[in-house]
Amino acid sequence: MTETGKRIVIIGGVACGPKAAARARRCDPHAHITMIEQGEFVSFAGCGMPYYIAGAVPEKEGLMTTTTGYVRDPEYFRLMKEVTVLTGTRADRIDRENKLVHATNLKTGETSAFQYDKLVIATGARPIVPPLEGINLKGIYTLRSLEEAIEIRKTIEENMELENAVIVGGGRISLEVTDAFANQGVDATIVELLDSLLATMLDPELALYLENTLKKHGMTILTSEKVLRFEGDSDGRVAKVVTDKREIDAQMAIVAVGVRPNADLAKAAGLEIGESGGIKVNEHMQTSDPDIFAGGDCVETDNLVTGRKCLMPLGSVANRQGRVIGDNITGFSRDTYPGVVGTSMLKALDLNIGKVGLTESEASRMGYDAVSMISPGADKSHFYPGGKTLIIKLVAERASQRLLGVQVIGPGDMPRVVDTVAAALTANMTLHQLANLDVGYAPPYASAISPLAHCANALRNKINGLAESLSLPDFKKRLDTRDDYMLLDVRKENEAANATIDDPRYLMIPLHELPERMQEIPSDKKIISICQVGGRSYEAVLTLKGKGVRNACYVEGGMSAWSKTFGAGQDDGHDE
Amino acid sequence: MTETGKRIVIIGGVACGPKAAARARRCDPHAHITMIEQGEFVSFAGCGMPYYIAGAVPEKEGLMTTTTGYVRDPEYFRLMKEVTVLTGTRADRIDRENKLVHATNLKTGETSAFQYDKLVIATGARPIVPPLEGINLKGIYTLRSLEEAIEIRKTIEENMELENAVIVGGGRISLEVTDAFANQGVDATIVELLDSLLATMLDPELALYLENTLKKHGMTILTSEKVLRFEGDSDGRVAKVVTDKREIDAQMAIVAVGVRPNADLAKAAGLEIGESGGIKVNEHMQTSDPDIFAGGDCVETDNLVTGRKCLMPLGSVANRQGRVIGDNITGFSRDTYPGVVGTSMLKALDLNIGKVGLTESEASRMGYDAVSMISPGADKSHFYPGGKTLIIKLVAERASQRLLGVQVIGPGDMPRVVDTVAAALTANMTLHQLANLDVGYAPPYASAISPLAHCANALRNKINGLAESLSLPDFKKRLDTRDDYMLLDVRKENEAANATIDDPRYLMIPLHELPERMQEIPSDKKIISICQVGGRSYEAVLTLKGKGVRNACYVEGGMSAWSKTFGAGQDDGHDE
Repeated sequence: MTETGKRIVIIGGVACGPKAAARARRCDPHAHITMIEQGEFVSFAGCGMPYYIAGAVPEKEGLMTTTTGYVRDPEYFRLMKEVTVLTGTRADRIDRENKLVHATNLKTGETSAFQYDKLVIATGARPIVPPLEGINLKGIYTLRSLEEAIEIRKTIEENMELENAVIVGGGRISLEVTDAFANQGVDATIVELLDSLLATMLDPELALYLENTLKKHGMTILTSEKVLRFEGDSDGRVAKVVTDKREIDAQMAIVAVGVRPNADLAKAAGLEIGESGGIKVNEHMQTSDPDIFAGGDCVETDNLVTGRKCLMPLGSVANRQGRVIGDNITGFSRDTYPGVVGTSMLKALDLNIGKVGLTESEASRMGYDAVSMISPGADKSHFYPGGKTLIIKLVAERASQRLLGVQVIGPGDMPRVVDTVAAALTANMTLHQLANLDVGYAPPYASAISPLAHCANALRNKINGLAESLSLPDFKKRLDTRDDYMLLDVRKENEAANATIDDPRYLMIPLHELPERMQEIPSDKKIISICQVGGRSYEAVLTLKGKGVRNACYVEGGMSAWSKTFGAGQDDGHDE
Repeated sequence: MTETGKRIVIIGGVACGPKAAARARRCDPHAHITMIEQGEFVSFAGCGMPYYIAGAVPEKEGLMTTTTGYVRDPEYFRLMKEVTVLTGTRADRIDRENKLVHATNLKTGETSAFQYDKLVIATGARPIVPPLEGINLKGIYTLRSLEEAIEIRKTIEENMELENAVIVGGGRISLEVTDAFANQGVDATIVELLDSLLATMLDPELALYLENTLKKHGMTILTSEKVLRFEGDSDGRVAKVVTDKREIDAQMAIVAVGVRPNADLAKAAGLEIGESGGIKVNEHMQTSDPDIFAGGDCVETDNLVTGRKCLMPLGSVANRQGRVIGDNITGFSRDTYPGVVGTSMLKALDLNIGKVGLTESEASRMGYDAVSMISPGADKSHFYPGGKTLIIKLVAERASQRLLGVQVIGPGDMPRVVDTVAAALTANMTLHQLANLDVGYAPPYASAISPLAHCANALRNKINGLAESLSLPDFKKRLDTRDDYMLLDVRKENEAANATIDDPRYLMIPLHELPERMQEIPSDKKIISICQVGGRSYEAVLTLKGKGVRNACYVEGGMSAWSKTFGAGQDDGHDE
């Protein structure tokens, strides 16, 4: 380091901050880099916290160390990166005119000021803590810190008397921690204000798959229900959660209703804040003050699918942004960060859940003429042992056939589908391009027609009017009416033994018998055809069309998707 | 069907043919569709054959049935698709003027002619059978048919006296069948003419990883070696394989040296054939005769990366093309097939191997100024249990930083990386775009910085001149010279216990001690820095640079990649 080195100050030491610091050091060996962190830990894997609570991550130390076992503490940053790290130090105010950050040492109360040439704001996000009566009772956690995560895990694993718990909010973090309760035999209840779980990732019918799976593991799911207050016992510990519909015994409560950007410092300094509440930055991650950069959970970012700003509080995004900041603050390059396509993934019990782009509900709300297709598939050729299933839902814009998003849920290989679609969405691909993508094929990894291509083609057929179809929610509606139609199951008899629909309108004619049994098909009724995953019932509609029966449609996703969602409780049999 | 239906004749019933037939039926309920197949089986999963031989696919029936257990025989096509299928029927000649296909029933010798309005040629590819002395001895297989596969598997599993076998050719199919020999304790030798295995998918250093793995399982690998002839015993069974270097005892030989398009019929009919030997088609899969379409292994296709024509004999490509043909021959749509990016995947023992685009060798041969980076990574966050490793090699064009290809090998989640890059290559992305792709992140599935993004960033650093580096082959060359340099291992001492390099130029200074031990760094020598996967040795180069030591570089991929390739035989320790 030389006396003339650039002074770089970074506020925030979790994800974007440390990445910006490390990259800045690599780009400029002479810079003076100081990182200020309010908490005790730096550079810890916050995204791993719920999995630590769930027991999937065995040791908390893992969250704080590098792969080679270095603890990422201030000493690590000093030796390995020549970065000065001050923990337990709160940045109080940014004086832009004099380029100073005023800070307080939280242990000693001592104040100090840090001079900067370039400043990085990486203050992250804060859990939203709803202002409910009793929220401060003992045993209620809002997942603000690693210390809290350690306490929750300890309580679940070691407190033999813990019988019940309530999770307020049915979003990402709530679902990531569910394994803990299922595995330890704790009666857990999720209370969600919206009418389905994980609404930012899944349309309601796929959320049902998740909900049904949680229920099978003994959890109680209460949607469209509002928590009003918490009630405590004489020790000041939580004992009850009171909702607008009932009272629930709870010896523990986890409140995880989302996060919001921690943009207070930036706002107080007069930096521009977006409508989302995140700090506004340009493609160089530069704020409205050219000497101040910001990244991570505290900024808003471009959504490449919608063209609008969005919040995307994820460690992956924070790291990508931190690298761009490192280049720009040192002047090494004018690197840019392009934005996100809204990718997220999580694991809950044996379900791998992922989403990119927009759900159908989101797309409709935003005014797109959205059209969707759902399709169950497997992650190996059907003749190769060990394949696991997935349900894929694709959403596209009708007129342009432009891809808008995908949702994937199931025990199968979700990340492959999600990442592929992330790249496809970034490139603004159409369904035609997606269906013809040269994705890899060999029996241990895929069918010759990948589940994703299959779903894209089915959606193209739907848009092109080749065969009329019913989405699962629409089928549910038709089933609940007393309309007179024929529900034609074209599976083979041995398949129907697994799951069927008990309805007077039901008739089974295996597809191979259909040409010879046309006399059983009424000419004056709507025919709703169903099979295992949607392929044969689609062919049945076309066969019927060829024979002059034009008032026929098929159920998207078939019994496989139906029995995991609206028709839950039945074994779903073997997927095609 | 009406009398006025279009007459569609399809020659070939394995992959593209049946797909074209099924799609044509869906698009046109009135067409008369006839499919002619020379063999006994239709629509069987040819790509599954090697895995059936290897024992990974337990039952041969799986290769011939749909997921729901329908055997895809002529009766299936008649009932389910209203397609007439004639097996054991060879198409002899296409009379374009009269729109007739002349054919022979191979059982009866009877000839017949089929009138077409639209003709589809889907005659596939033929294994290349080298004209070697003794090639027709018993016990030598060229993998031409399912029957042959059944016989090979039976021999390996049931013939207790089978002690040794030779596989001629070290390509895709040879590697897919290796498990059979490794699992059954048969001494197997692969003889490959080129200087490395799987040269169409892997650069030589990654082929070494494969070679070393096969050797660990008891196989013998002979590269740069030419088979001259086979010698038989008194029963006319193969007994010996004679190469230009030795004689090898062999009770069985599998000859798998590639396939070539079966374009004879098309050629004889005067259709245009490309330089590759495949039938020329336009984006509608239409040949030089507008009423004749062709697809699958017998055609050449556009390579979107190189802009040239290529052969891509894969069931996935054949199916995509078949669908496009179905639309076009019925007039349902003018659908187009865009081409491939050269994706292939295979599984050999516990290695998942995949490739998209160009290898570095291919890119260099084609005249690109190619630059590459290799980087080991894991498919989960390091603190999440069960992560498996992968080595990723990215190839890009230097000036434009345009992505040219990726190779992936290891026990980890290869398909995710390959499919993502397939989409990125289709969209002609740069390394900047690849590094910033919004791929999914959660600890069960990835690190916050994905291995692919990490590799892309490392390659950007290399191109931008941030730190000088040595590829594995270049490092191997340097190690084999007597040049005077310092080989600086910046890992921690406990890591070096796993794998190290025994060389007088070797010195270990853990990265965290480097700033304080600068006096041990000679100022007059080149410093070659190495660590576990390349991250810390890269940082070491930058630290040295900051201290005025500019003649330093690091080894790409570190000890992890080194010990799997050139430095094989050592335990490779724990990846960063």
